[in-house]
Amino acid sequence: MDYPKTIKDLIACFKKLPGVGEKTAERYALSILNSDLEFTDMFSDTLRNVKTKIKRCSICNNYSEEEICPICNDKSRDNNVICVVEEPKNVIIFEKIGTYNGLYHVLDGLISPLDGVNPEDIKIDSLIKRINDNKIDEVIIAVKPSIEGETTALYISKLLENKNIKITKIAHGVPLGADMDYIDALTLELALENRTQIS
Amino acid sequence: MDYPKTIKDLIACFKKLPGVGEKTAERYALSILNSDLEFTDMFSDTLRNVKTKIKRCSICNNYSEEEICPICNDKSRDNNVICVVEEPKNVIIFEKIGTYNGLYHVLDGLISPLDGVNPEDIKIDSLIKRINDNKIDEVIIAVKPSIEGETTALYISKLLENKNIKITKIAHGVPLGADMDYIDALTLELALENRTQIS
Repeated sequence: MDYPKTIKDLIACFKKLPGVGEKTAERYALSILNSDLEFTDMFSDTLRNVKTKIKRCSICNNYSEEEICPICNDKSRDNNVICVVEEPKNVIIFEKIGTYNGLYHVLDGLISPLDGVNPEDIKIDSLIKRINDNKIDEVIIAVKPSIEGETTALYISKLLENKNIKITKIAHGVPLGADMDYIDALTLELALENRTQIS
Repeated sequence: MDYPKTIKDLIACFKKLPGVGEKTAERYALSILNSDLEFTDMFSDTLRNVKTKIKRCSICNNYSEEEICPICNDKSRDNNVICVVEEPKNVIIFEKIGTYNGLYHVLDGLISPLDGVNPEDIKIDSLIKRINDNKIDEVIIAVKPSIEGETTALYISKLLENKNIKITKIAHGVPLGADMDYIDALTLELALENRTQIS
């Protein structure tokens, strides 16, 4: 004897979520059984909506409910600067800082030949076209500091050579509040290399 | 600028699950965006189904898709023994052992006057009625060892006094594989009190 089929089906669905095992999925499913019908109906509808309503912005490739996302549509933003990020969620993090006023471009991945991800598999073509078609002063590459990130940054900067565009990369180093004991050697090396003068 | 409304709605839904915070809910929602439509449709349907299809067994109060659950309906089981548990998920744990062949009774809570849970708020009445209407030899009380558990066990045993029914309680003690250093004093006290002779 196990749970009735419907409960087992729901546990199976929750198990597909990242990092969710049998026990957690069971806990989630049982909490759904104890929640009110109004909530489960809304949850059910939202799950369906998210797949039908959310598209990608035709300019920057970020998640959007419209053809063009609110950022690309915002006339008050500096449309001469593009910040290149790996995933849509990175845009949210930059927006939370509140000081960046340029546009974005979501690559949807990083070049990684070992995983079979080549330049044509991510949104580099549309980035280059966008830069060619518009007056862009600066391209800020804001991808994570990994082999894939460095490869992608290098590839994009090569394509933009001789175009008289400033290409920058966000700084990598020791994060604020970090305990020096736990910083890995590679980060420390980068932090040392990119040291800034204080007096 | 934040996520589009539909994504924010989905994050809000996931946040209602037990133990899920903002970051985890965001991770779940983004994984839904990356999963295929077939899966989200099934997930959406299952969420709705679970609330409409799952009822409580009219005999033992366990989750069931039928009026009477498969355990209560199983003629091969010993219907003279009832194991009293707090929640439906406890039934699954006992069934996993594979050696218990009696029936169950799901209380749906434990007596806890401080939390406003009185005997009439949990399924004690239906348990007593069931015992009166059927030939029951033994009632095994298998609730957690807490003040609420003890109170509930005592309350039920008082109600069944002078009925010539054996009332038992599962053993509490040091769990198998436990490190003695980490056993709390109360558990150890119980383990000592209920020691069994080995030779």
